[in-house]
Amino acid sequence: MSGVEPGATIGILGGGQLGRMLAMACADLGLRAHVYAPETGPAFDVCAEATLASYDDEAALEAFARACAVVTYEFENVPAATADFLAAHGRVDPNGRALAVSQDRLAEKRFLQSIGVATAPFAMVDGAADLKAGLVRLGAPAILKTRRFGYDGKGQVRIDAQSQAAAALAAMANQPSILEGLVAFTREVSVVAARGRDGAFVAYDLCENEHVDHVLSLTRAPACITPKAAASATTIARRIADALDYVGVIAVEMFVVGEGAHETLVVNEMAPRVHNSGHWTLGGADTSQFAQHIRAICGWPLGSGRRRGRIEMRNLLGAQALTWRALLAQPGADVHLYGKHQARPGRKMGHVTRIFPEAEQ
Amino acid sequence: MSGVEPGATIGILGGGQLGRMLAMACADLGLRAHVYAPETGPAFDVCAEATLASYDDEAALEAFARACAVVTYEFENVPAATADFLAAHGRVDPNGRALAVSQDRLAEKRFLQSIGVATAPFAMVDGAADLKAGLVRLGAPAILKTRRFGYDGKGQVRIDAQSQAAAALAAMANQPSILEGLVAFTREVSVVAARGRDGAFVAYDLCENEHVDHVLSLTRAPACITPKAAASATTIARRIADALDYVGVIAVEMFVVGEGAHETLVVNEMAPRVHNSGHWTLGGADTSQFAQHIRAICGWPLGSGRRRGRIEMRNLLGAQALTWRALLAQPGADVHLYGKHQARPGRKMGHVTRIFPEAEQ
Repeated sequence: MSGVEPGATIGILGGGQLGRMLAMACADLGLRAHVYAPETGPAFDVCAEATLASYDDEAALEAFARACAVVTYEFENVPAATADFLAAHGRVDPNGRALAVSQDRLAEKRFLQSIGVATAPFAMVDGAADLKAGLVRLGAPAILKTRRFGYDGKGQVRIDAQSQAAAALAAMANQPSILEGLVAFTREVSVVAARGRDGAFVAYDLCENEHVDHVLSLTRAPACITPKAAASATTIARRIADALDYVGVIAVEMFVVGEGAHETLVVNEMAPRVHNSGHWTLGGADTSQFAQHIRAICGWPLGSGRRRGRIEMRNLLGAQALTWRALLAQPGADVHLYGKHQARPGRKMGHVTRIFPEAEQ
Repeated sequence: MSGVEPGATIGILGGGQLGRMLAMACADLGLRAHVYAPETGPAFDVCAEATLASYDDEAALEAFARACAVVTYEFENVPAATADFLAAHGRVDPNGRALAVSQDRLAEKRFLQSIGVATAPFAMVDGAADLKAGLVRLGAPAILKTRRFGYDGKGQVRIDAQSQAAAALAAMANQPSILEGLVAFTREVSVVAARGRDGAFVAYDLCENEHVDHVLSLTRAPACITPKAAASATTIARRIADALDYVGVIAVEMFVVGEGAHETLVVNEMAPRVHNSGHWTLGGADTSQFAQHIRAICGWPLGSGRRRGRIEMRNLLGAQALTWRALLAQPGADVHLYGKHQARPGRKMGHVTRIFPEAEQ
């Protein structure tokens, strides 16, 4: 539990914008970042060391593990074998159980149920018979999703009637799947929080998210829900983190069902990493989620998560990033660009955070 | 005047902590940083490209200039020949005149006088006769300083009587020198400001500095001087920047003489770069001095310099950095560590910024 000293090297699996912002947080704390990824990306421009190798290159992984005081990751689809191999050669946080649970929608829902956290109704789907039975039990419409490797709406299809079942199953290409009942939510919110090696827990204020085409577009903090529901959301996130003996930043996406005093929360999914809906903390909170994650995995004291005002964070998706000059000219717009070369539609190119005085509406 | 596009490469001469923070500001704005220095240092851990070569390696300099959309520097002692060579191969900001004036205490004082800015009384010293005459004219005590390459109190010696003149001159090792009369100041303050390619000028609020053994220890913003004197300080900085057709962040250190309504300002020295007394802007202002400098040299709109509260920035000098864990545990302490390996006495290892509500005293 003695932790890591400044000057140490922190390993980051994944070379995208989350890895980039984690690497910069390392640097700001006097640590060296070593990025490992199978292809170059935004994180390679800001790290002290980089390894360009596949996730099954054991020689490269072993050298990486040896070079790093602790290894973390920017995305939950790190192959389990990679994480296991690295864990056998050094410390990896968040731990393997957090990764395993987050990688599989079925394992995730069963885990959440096991600790008394509400989820959407669901049914395991391993073939046509499962899907038919699931649709009978959950009713239509429902969503058929791959159990693994889905993100930003990829790997899922909506089923409005039994007659669409075969086509939906075909779209899954025989991957193990899960059928989820639709949740009639009023808002989507997320808790971004950190748990330290010593069990300390610091949650940022609950934020509210708007998606466009399944991709996060806008995050507002605080979320416009009752204080009671907001407190409940934080309690749920802590219960999850404690149950997993989690170390690092975790994000838990939830649906808010009902209004006012009748608000209840249903967990949609969790991410064992820094999260797009926490980008506002970079400048909008005393400690960014990136710095907080690095503090946690180093065994360092967690920082204050105090929010610095009312926050709006907008993703710059695809061609929206072409407005960078106008955004830079806007007073109060805190513009972050990820250094990606091609502004493909829907691609996360950067984000802009605006902080307003708390009282202003 | 069309400026630089995101994705471009920015060249930074110098590999220290200022270069490091400039490189991170580049990354945050979607730019690639290329650090050039004769020895490795903190900036090498966060840059997309690095050149380890001497400042007179013309082949390396030419390749560097070709790779960069614009070149800047983290310290004013870049050899003039290096800056000239680079300027012949591409754009360098701040420009050569700003560099030349800042590199030579005599040229600096003459320039300031020429634009009507008050300085300490001074005399050029090229030998014993000059020094004797200077001491007669300015009186003792006075400070004999090398004209070039002095910083943090290095290259200067105090003379309390004519009898010490020979020893003082010997300490200068025959370098061209300048004798400066002592200024009986009440406070040391600095203006950190940016001037854009279009002449736009954004100054941060005046800050007040405390030095220990000639090294900056503490910066407070705002400075505790009258609004009239504070406005006058900003006017002086702008006059300097305009006169040099300056592009980038500039720091102007001044002495405050007298109290209250009798406060006047005497310019001590200027730095054509981001400055230690502006470190508080990283988190303490809407736009950090590092981001502001990069915006300016790219021809981008300058950002807001609004201060986010009452600020204290303390340098972590030498062994003070060993308290990092306790500092990280302090709520509201924003700790920045530079990744330097050896905590030599007086060495700038990091800094800590604290932001207090404006009203609190």
